[in-house]
Amino acid sequence: MNTTTGRIAQVMAHVRTQIHQRSLVTGARLPSVRAQAQLLKVSVSTVVEAYERLVAEGLILAKAGSGYYVQGSVAPLDLRQAGAPQDRAIDPLWISRQALEGDAQMLRPGCGWLPPQWLFEDGMRRALRTVARAEVDSLSEYATPLGLPPLRLLLARRMAAMGLEATPEQIVLTESGTQAIDLICRLFLQAGDTVLVDDPCYFNFHALLKAHRVKVVGVPYTEHGPDLQAFQAALLEHQPRLYVTNAGIHNPTGATLSPVVAHRLLKLIDGSDLVVVEDDIFADFELTAAARLSVFDGLERVIHIGSFSKTLSASVRVGYIAAKPEWLEALVDLKIATTFAGGRLAQELVWHALTDSGYRKHVEAMRVRLAQAMQIVVPKLQALGIEPWLLPSAGIFVWCRLPAGCDAAQVAQACLQQGLVLAPGNAFSLSQNAGDSLRFNVAQCLDERVFAVLARVLTASN
Amino acid sequence: MNTTTGRIAQVMAHVRTQIHQRSLVTGARLPSVRAQAQLLKVSVSTVVEAYERLVAEGLILAKAGSGYYVQGSVAPLDLRQAGAPQDRAIDPLWISRQALEGDAQMLRPGCGWLPPQWLFEDGMRRALRTVARAEVDSLSEYATPLGLPPLRLLLARRMAAMGLEATPEQIVLTESGTQAIDLICRLFLQAGDTVLVDDPCYFNFHALLKAHRVKVVGVPYTEHGPDLQAFQAALLEHQPRLYVTNAGIHNPTGATLSPVVAHRLLKLIDGSDLVVVEDDIFADFELTAAARLSVFDGLERVIHIGSFSKTLSASVRVGYIAAKPEWLEALVDLKIATTFAGGRLAQELVWHALTDSGYRKHVEAMRVRLAQAMQIVVPKLQALGIEPWLLPSAGIFVWCRLPAGCDAAQVAQACLQQGLVLAPGNAFSLSQNAGDSLRFNVAQCLDERVFAVLARVLTASN
Repeated sequence: MNTTTGRIAQVMAHVRTQIHQRSLVTGARLPSVRAQAQLLKVSVSTVVEAYERLVAEGLILAKAGSGYYVQGSVAPLDLRQAGAPQDRAIDPLWISRQALEGDAQMLRPGCGWLPPQWLFEDGMRRALRTVARAEVDSLSEYATPLGLPPLRLLLARRMAAMGLEATPEQIVLTESGTQAIDLICRLFLQAGDTVLVDDPCYFNFHALLKAHRVKVVGVPYTEHGPDLQAFQAALLEHQPRLYVTNAGIHNPTGATLSPVVAHRLLKLIDGSDLVVVEDDIFADFELTAAARLSVFDGLERVIHIGSFSKTLSASVRVGYIAAKPEWLEALVDLKIATTFAGGRLAQELVWHALTDSGYRKHVEAMRVRLAQAMQIVVPKLQALGIEPWLLPSAGIFVWCRLPAGCDAAQVAQACLQQGLVLAPGNAFSLSQNAGDSLRFNVAQCLDERVFAVLARVLTASN
Repeated sequence: MNTTTGRIAQVMAHVRTQIHQRSLVTGARLPSVRAQAQLLKVSVSTVVEAYERLVAEGLILAKAGSGYYVQGSVAPLDLRQAGAPQDRAIDPLWISRQALEGDAQMLRPGCGWLPPQWLFEDGMRRALRTVARAEVDSLSEYATPLGLPPLRLLLARRMAAMGLEATPEQIVLTESGTQAIDLICRLFLQAGDTVLVDDPCYFNFHALLKAHRVKVVGVPYTEHGPDLQAFQAALLEHQPRLYVTNAGIHNPTGATLSPVVAHRLLKLIDGSDLVVVEDDIFADFELTAAARLSVFDGLERVIHIGSFSKTLSASVRVGYIAAKPEWLEALVDLKIATTFAGGRLAQELVWHALTDSGYRKHVEAMRVRLAQAMQIVVPKLQALGIEPWLLPSAGIFVWCRLPAGCDAAQVAQACLQQGLVLAPGNAFSLSQNAGDSLRFNVAQCLDERVFAVLARVLTASN
């Protein structure tokens, strides 16, 4: 694409994307021809040509002696990956929707959760029967603003057990872990702010942050946590408002934060405006607890969130946020303004399930089963030349490199046609440097057909 | 407050609010002294003094020869009513939180829902027992992106019965009616856009729109719908992007849209960019269906939303959106990005309850009970000099004027101290011209203590 035509198309695509994502709104002035040329590292004449073509398309308007302006009505917000259809293979939203479509024929090594049979089925049935006999308020009333008191008390005790001091009044229940992060984004961010994420990170963070129209900067993730040098450089260069990361087992890499990296990271952000969001959704999978930023920091600038969708049920939606009191108050206001009250019934079900005498045994059995799946699946992947980046200490994910020369997006697309939903690396990577990687969910890889399809596709693509 | 000191304080409060709500962000230049003086209709010297005091407070910064700039770090988004504590009586969020706190000692004529015993308790218990025996997927899996297919089919049939043609693929389930509106706001709005609401309107619309940092313009609501002349003027003057209103029985006034107003309103917006959101949350209370914008428009520019919290259960959270296909797709993307998948279990419970053979009888009994409550409550209010603005054809609300000289916010505050949560008119009114009005929920007024407290407070305040 290094021809003149290619460069003109590139400038046009850049402007179109900005209008589409509403970085440029109706009536807004485009960067001057010279500024745009510098920004995109193309010649002035290339920009002039690109702008003129966009004028011809009616997308922008030239005003004599004044510059170019966005014309007409603005399209609704579009979260999809801009670009050709083949890019859908690494479009976070498209992968989420594929995985959620729930076609029972599909195998889903790329999806981010356990098969339903692995979750706390018996406990949920018991919880449902219990709630069916509960007081009328449990069945009919809104939840209170903070959410069900005994569940918040239980969460406070669980947090205390890992060294995180939070009173039940510092905990608010949400409709999901994703909604918890979304509320925090709404509290702290406005369009144009900068947010740090891990590279790679959970792909839905990209879609979520796009909905907030913020600038996202990736920090490479190492075996022991974020690369601190890169983190510091990003801090200085971009003055980010938020850093969104996983606590415990990292998604997608399976790495865990070391105490020394946790400590140094918190020292780095001392004195800055940065707020850290720590998503602890995989806590119950850990065999030994990794270092947590929230525990070291004592909820000063770290906000701790989580949910029960990975271990209890994804059908009953409850998440939570633990934060310092003044932030928590504002988050509750935002929750009420944007979703009104929470689902009391879901909160009661989760509380009954977590206090069910079988819950601990369920979690322990799940960990053993996962460790076994890991031992079965990794050698089978290796036999196909698919190599783990590291062997995770626990959890459901293993982050792998494909054999040299294979493109993960192409492999994912070919596999999809054969009934296999994969999660190609670049869906997780802001820098798009994981084109040779895939994230595998070991619990979703216990069907022999997974490896048969992979073998066929890899052979064909080599 | 028309002293110089008062005017200086007013300018300072204005700037503080703007910084607080992030209309002015860190580093942003404040309006020039002259521009600010014109805007707020005060003298230049008043603005100079106000700015200098804010500099002294460290909130803003003076740069020689250049102007005043916002200093330091920006506070998180604050949705509360700025101002003195007494303003809390009309702060939408504070009223919602009071009503939701669920203190069993409080009487709540100001709250927006029925007592839990009025809802479909038996049906919900049956639904819970049924789901306790369901397939594991119902208990453990995420919902599909659009939501439970049979529930969407049922909704499509209900819509068809009122003349609204929508396929099940044009319907997406959400976590609540409020979340439905929020997703639509996220799709179409960005900070600084203008939104039309009814004046008065459901007070949480104000809090919700504040979270989107948009400009809100009120259109007076008449007995037959919005005042069309005012609507047209607002359309021309503000080029609003959205109009958010109720379908069927209007909250808080109890009025209903007439066919002629519906038709004329749609003609008015023809050719504009305006999208209409019609919140049909009270549909099941109607005895005869009022005109609906969505039915006349055929989902071209009207989006139809609703939920089950008013008639079925507020504890099980499910809402829905019906929209044209291209908008629906984008809304599903936004839903996944910001809350991931929906709650499958809640969707199954709602589906079982709606298809329960007792549901129709439940709704009919509820309507009769509400009509009876209306007949009991209205004369008792009138006996205290509290006059309905109109007698609603159905529903739970009656919008009333207090005796001459009474201030609804003061009355609400005094009543709160005596255990009565009221909803004062200005919480619903953007123009703040409902200072003499209150919204009463007739189903929450069947306790004699409501009138005893009201009588005491009104006597004391006259």
